[in-house]
Amino acid sequence: MNEEINKRIKNINFGEESIALHEKLGGKLETKSKVDLNSREQLSLAYTPGVAAVSLAISDDESLSKKYTIKKNTIAIITDGSAILGLGNLGAKSAIPVMEGKAAILKEFANVDAFPICIESQDTEDIIKIIKNISPVFGGINLEDIASPKCFEIENRLRKELDIPVMHDDQWGAATVILTALINSFKLLGKENKEDLKIILSGVGAAGVATARLLLDYGFTNILFLDSKGIITKDRNDLNKEKIELLEKSTADLSSYCNGDNLEKAVIDKDVFIGLSKAGVLNKEMIKSMSERPIIFALANPIPEIMPNEAKEAGAFIVATGRSDFSNQINNSLLFPGFWKGVLNASNNGYYKGVDNQTFIKIAEILANRVFDLSVENILPTMFDKEIINIIAESFKD
Amino acid sequence: MNEEINKRIKNINFGEESIALHEKLGGKLETKSKVDLNSREQLSLAYTPGVAAVSLAISDDESLSKKYTIKKNTIAIITDGSAILGLGNLGAKSAIPVMEGKAAILKEFANVDAFPICIESQDTEDIIKIIKNISPVFGGINLEDIASPKCFEIENRLRKELDIPVMHDDQWGAATVILTALINSFKLLGKENKEDLKIILSGVGAAGVATARLLLDYGFTNILFLDSKGIITKDRNDLNKEKIELLEKSTADLSSYCNGDNLEKAVIDKDVFIGLSKAGVLNKEMIKSMSERPIIFALANPIPEIMPNEAKEAGAFIVATGRSDFSNQINNSLLFPGFWKGVLNASNNGYYKGVDNQTFIKIAEILANRVFDLSVENILPTMFDKEIINIIAESFKD
Repeated sequence: MNEEINKRIKNINFGEESIALHEKLGGKLETKSKVDLNSREQLSLAYTPGVAAVSLAISDDESLSKKYTIKKNTIAIITDGSAILGLGNLGAKSAIPVMEGKAAILKEFANVDAFPICIESQDTEDIIKIIKNISPVFGGINLEDIASPKCFEIENRLRKELDIPVMHDDQWGAATVILTALINSFKLLGKENKEDLKIILSGVGAAGVATARLLLDYGFTNILFLDSKGIITKDRNDLNKEKIELLEKSTADLSSYCNGDNLEKAVIDKDVFIGLSKAGVLNKEMIKSMSERPIIFALANPIPEIMPNEAKEAGAFIVATGRSDFSNQINNSLLFPGFWKGVLNASNNGYYKGVDNQTFIKIAEILANRVFDLSVENILPTMFDKEIINIIAESFKD
Repeated sequence: MNEEINKRIKNINFGEESIALHEKLGGKLETKSKVDLNSREQLSLAYTPGVAAVSLAISDDESLSKKYTIKKNTIAIITDGSAILGLGNLGAKSAIPVMEGKAAILKEFANVDAFPICIESQDTEDIIKIIKNISPVFGGINLEDIASPKCFEIENRLRKELDIPVMHDDQWGAATVILTALINSFKLLGKENKEDLKIILSGVGAAGVATARLLLDYGFTNILFLDSKGIITKDRNDLNKEKIELLEKSTADLSSYCNGDNLEKAVIDKDVFIGLSKAGVLNKEMIKSMSERPIIFALANPIPEIMPNEAKEAGAFIVATGRSDFSNQINNSLLFPGFWKGVLNASNNGYYKGVDNQTFIKIAEILANRVFDLSVENILPTMFDKEIINIIAESFKD
């Protein structure tokens, strides 16, 4: 094995043990028949000749496919392997174990069947066409680990062009749980007006754009955006349409910033830092330059923008990370099990009304209310509170 | 429901009971996690952060995907819904219950995981492109219920352009089991030379072309072909390339036939009738015009070209049909469970050498030898002899 890869693997927590487990299992997911097939009669009912009647019935009314087939309870977990975890563009095959894991979690936590699909092409139009073409067997499409900005176009187009729910989890999982954390932080802060909360959002990729959209729609409108080139101002000429849209909606005062100003300047006097960027970019001095009782969501994985103990030492009021080994884990996995359970139920029972920002804002509010002993060390619910899945799922009935 | 459809459903054996079963189950297949996910540590091993190591290892050596992921034991059952069972072109959604049934059988009989994919487009190039693009997660591609002649181009191209096994089951399942039946019938007939056996093959679609290819390669070369327009002679100008190829390879004497001659003329003095055509096209008079001790494979489904009792009354020596309620069922399902089990093992363990006509001829010989008390009423093994699957699978080791 390549030395560089070997070194990176050794640095991943649980990495070598995980490889051993995967080798032992040879795949984390299997299929299972729900029917016995031990007699001619059972075969005649589940397969030919009986199944011909089911096919004919569906040909007469396609909506019966949601009643008679796996379409009722099965979604696809789809990627092109262009943005796998924090690892980057490793291609379709490298994504398989991640998609399998996601599918296994969905089944175990929400009893929704899910199957991984890893697409070889990384071209936007190819991906859209392929997903549309393989959609008949699925009740929903969970997009995963697709690079920004093409992920926006792919999700947007599929939502318009397919009659089943489509959700890019890297966007909405992160966005929903970040909003949850911010709703509860705001309560603890005791401020009055959401639009007065001065927010820095550093990292405007898939998760960053979706987070910004939810925050803006929810009323946290005072957001200053940063990407790898620094503060995003209106005079930048390299902005994609998502960044332009966010800039237009933000109420942040940009008058004192220039093109290219950095994070050090940006954080001064701000109330909230949301980092979806890189390990170690935030330091104690920067936190000290923020307003009183600053809120730090340092979500770079596996190493956050600043370690929680340092942030606390510098005066942070609330610190959250993406990690399970510190308090306040912003766990993107809180959304998708309940979301898919609820959305499939809605779709199968005729009350599905589509998915938009309000869907995720409502779920963030539900999650925020599911924290019973709210404190600066406990602003988020845990994924092991399995009742959450049912509560989210039920919310689609309203 | 449409009255016409309703009437057709009522005429299908087990049809209404099958619809009730499908409604009760809401899909015959489910996914199942092979890992427990009840603790943070289990999640860290099966999903993040540990799984990142597995992705990195695969990015370094893509062949590890066959060791660490579901690619090891999972195939796709893929259709475009253009030729569903004997029902015709009912489209992708109507095919779902059939593909599910196939997947369930494969799991139950051979412990191979299989997932149904139903493609919306019915365009050859689209289908090829889509299958290539979704192939990373699969260890093999089982094509199913795709109309002739595009099925030939699709299978041929995918075999060349993919590095995993591809098999169109409607072709090779039928062809392999028909060859099995003919090998055993030939033994019972006691003739000396395979090339002297005068065969009529009526129906030159997916199954017919593949059957002809195996028979020709095996040595049963004296075949007269018929399609819906009658006897296929060299002066027909409407032949696709498969029919032209078969005509060139056949040693049958065509000198006494003209363009458009019908089945009645064709069967005179022939030893074997293989029907992959339509209900009731063969009658007693025609059988009486055949050579002594004629062999009749009347495989139209669900109603054969002639009913077995009538064929016997007219002097047939051996009669086989596609039905389980008569003796000598030509059951296409004998091939695929053992085939896929063997081919995946071969592919995972480095001894996969590709799939060609010889692969299926060898399996037909194995199946023919698996009939222990050979008689005119018993020329074929049964699908419930589960040892067959292992014997076929093991044959890939040679």
